[in-house]
Amino acid sequence: MSELKNDRFLRALLREPVDVTPVWMMRQAGRYLPEYRATRARAGSFMDLCTNPELACEVTLQPLERFPLDAAILFSDILTIPDAMGLGLYFSEGEGPRFERPVRTAADVAALGVPDPETNLRYVMDAVRLIRRELHGRVPLIGFSGSPWTLATYMVEGSSSKEYSKIKGMMFDQPALLHKLLDTTAQSVITYLNAQIAAGAQAVMVFDTWGGVLTPRDYREFSLRYMEQIVHGLQRESEGRRVPVVLFTKGGGAWLEAMADTGCDALGVDWTTDLGDARARVGGRVALQGNMDPCVLYASPERIRAEVATILASYGRGSGHVFNLGHGIHQHVDPEHARVFVEAVHELSPQYHR
Amino acid sequence: MSELKNDRFLRALLREPVDVTPVWMMRQAGRYLPEYRATRARAGSFMDLCTNPELACEVTLQPLERFPLDAAILFSDILTIPDAMGLGLYFSEGEGPRFERPVRTAADVAALGVPDPETNLRYVMDAVRLIRRELHGRVPLIGFSGSPWTLATYMVEGSSSKEYSKIKGMMFDQPALLHKLLDTTAQSVITYLNAQIAAGAQAVMVFDTWGGVLTPRDYREFSLRYMEQIVHGLQRESEGRRVPVVLFTKGGGAWLEAMADTGCDALGVDWTTDLGDARARVGGRVALQGNMDPCVLYASPERIRAEVATILASYGRGSGHVFNLGHGIHQHVDPEHARVFVEAVHELSPQYHR
Repeated sequence: MSELKNDRFLRALLREPVDVTPVWMMRQAGRYLPEYRATRARAGSFMDLCTNPELACEVTLQPLERFPLDAAILFSDILTIPDAMGLGLYFSEGEGPRFERPVRTAADVAALGVPDPETNLRYVMDAVRLIRRELHGRVPLIGFSGSPWTLATYMVEGSSSKEYSKIKGMMFDQPALLHKLLDTTAQSVITYLNAQIAAGAQAVMVFDTWGGVLTPRDYREFSLRYMEQIVHGLQRESEGRRVPVVLFTKGGGAWLEAMADTGCDALGVDWTTDLGDARARVGGRVALQGNMDPCVLYASPERIRAEVATILASYGRGSGHVFNLGHGIHQHVDPEHARVFVEAVHELSPQYHR
Repeated sequence: MSELKNDRFLRALLREPVDVTPVWMMRQAGRYLPEYRATRARAGSFMDLCTNPELACEVTLQPLERFPLDAAILFSDILTIPDAMGLGLYFSEGEGPRFERPVRTAADVAALGVPDPETNLRYVMDAVRLIRRELHGRVPLIGFSGSPWTLATYMVEGSSSKEYSKIKGMMFDQPALLHKLLDTTAQSVITYLNAQIAAGAQAVMVFDTWGGVLTPRDYREFSLRYMEQIVHGLQRESEGRRVPVVLFTKGGGAWLEAMADTGCDALGVDWTTDLGDARARVGGRVALQGNMDPCVLYASPERIRAEVATILASYGRGSGHVFNLGHGIHQHVDPEHARVFVEAVHELSPQYHR
């Protein structure tokens, strides 16, 4: 493996000194880039793109060719695990992901196994290996997975949901069954992320997109508990370096203390929490990743720079901050605005690291 | 006016002693009730129902015929104000509300006036008067409005939104223009709610459905500030009694302290905040209304009762709690489950008021 030339992303996640605040963007390999749309059109469907390691590698690297980003993130989908479990993932235009065979009964749950990453999910591991080779050590590669609660939400609902009535119905009336589903899913995530680490991922992130729809009690029991299980099950060192683990619950700003208690290295923070407040609450224990409202990228370059300055000042002096958006970049953003954002982080942050 | 026979809802909002915890449900006059669906079918469109005082009165009273609720809430829509401003509200099946003439430019904002409640919104005031008469003092009547930020969101986006790119674009690049729009809207809300109070509303609630999509700073500047303006502009006494004001920002659990600072009487709380924590933070200053996850109503009667018991215990002893869902009741809930919920609150709460 090539030596890592820019390790400030990994250093910041471990709260080690850095020269400037590192930055990347959730969904940085995405539809806002014309070159992504071109590759996607060549690939066929979205899943054709995900399952083709060469094309997944190509789109992973595209944003790095444009912007001075400090990390690459594997291009994939959070629903690869349930797909590999046999639920039949497909995407219907304009409606988001769906499963042909959602999980509804005890028999459905009992039938689920832990997928072997090097067979059913081989395309992901091949993509990780190829991206690492093609990165030539420019920046670290982030691997990722959905959280067990978030994966289970799609598995039980069978599609995106507004009300979560099916999975919450299971949670309220058959909690033992849901726990069994979450346990199998958590085991699958551990196996999957450890395989990504073995294949070359240098940090991993768990996306808990739907933990924020729960009560504080249900969040701890049905989402956080399984993320903690994952943190403890992961291979935390690889290639002689620590592999940082980042947990991100969208809408979970009230629960940062409990999230930090899991033993993870860093927390993703969305824009509804002030980053300085978050640091005051948990900054002594974990790094923070975030947290600009993605809608700021619709604003003028001056406004984008002003917002970057505000967030840097809110976090304050010292390491432990990875700049990011508070959610994935929107598809209608002008790529030149993304450039303004990335460059502003590097230009305005050195004063906080002197 | 008939004397008020059951005033525990008003007393709890003012943190005065009560015998049992009062309860009502957001959207209690709604599609989960077959009698509502029948009236709605007779009316024609949703707006035909809203603009017909006799039918609006009929559906307002329907849930009270079924369940021992402690308050009635005016049946109306939050978007009556922008409609009365001339934006042309309409509902397209399955897509939610839309405006024919959304507000996008400085000229659009300048053209907006404060609607006169007794002309353009007369149908609402007639409904309030009729409902008060037909209630015969059984329970108090709640009037309501959307918050200025929430109304402006629909007015600028022109429809429901997932990204809020248009209104946030205005917020980031033309904040003065958005403030002008919010100021006109806040003046309209004050005039509208005071007219509802004059017509007979005995408490009022401001629904800030979309304040939770903002950063803490933007929330204070663009949503909370205008709700505070409303609190100070309202007629707080009518018919010799105080008219309590309730503010509710969905997803605003982190900001309860700032909301309590507005001088309102009570705060709505959604289920992502623990009610006991909320009380510890602001219970000395305001009453709290909430906060069961509406999805619990899909669960078994035993589970519904258990959740009611947990929330009552979380709030603890003494007045200052109005039981409610944390959001509107879902349309696919069995009305018999709503009954279990309402009855459980009355049955399980006396021990907290002895």
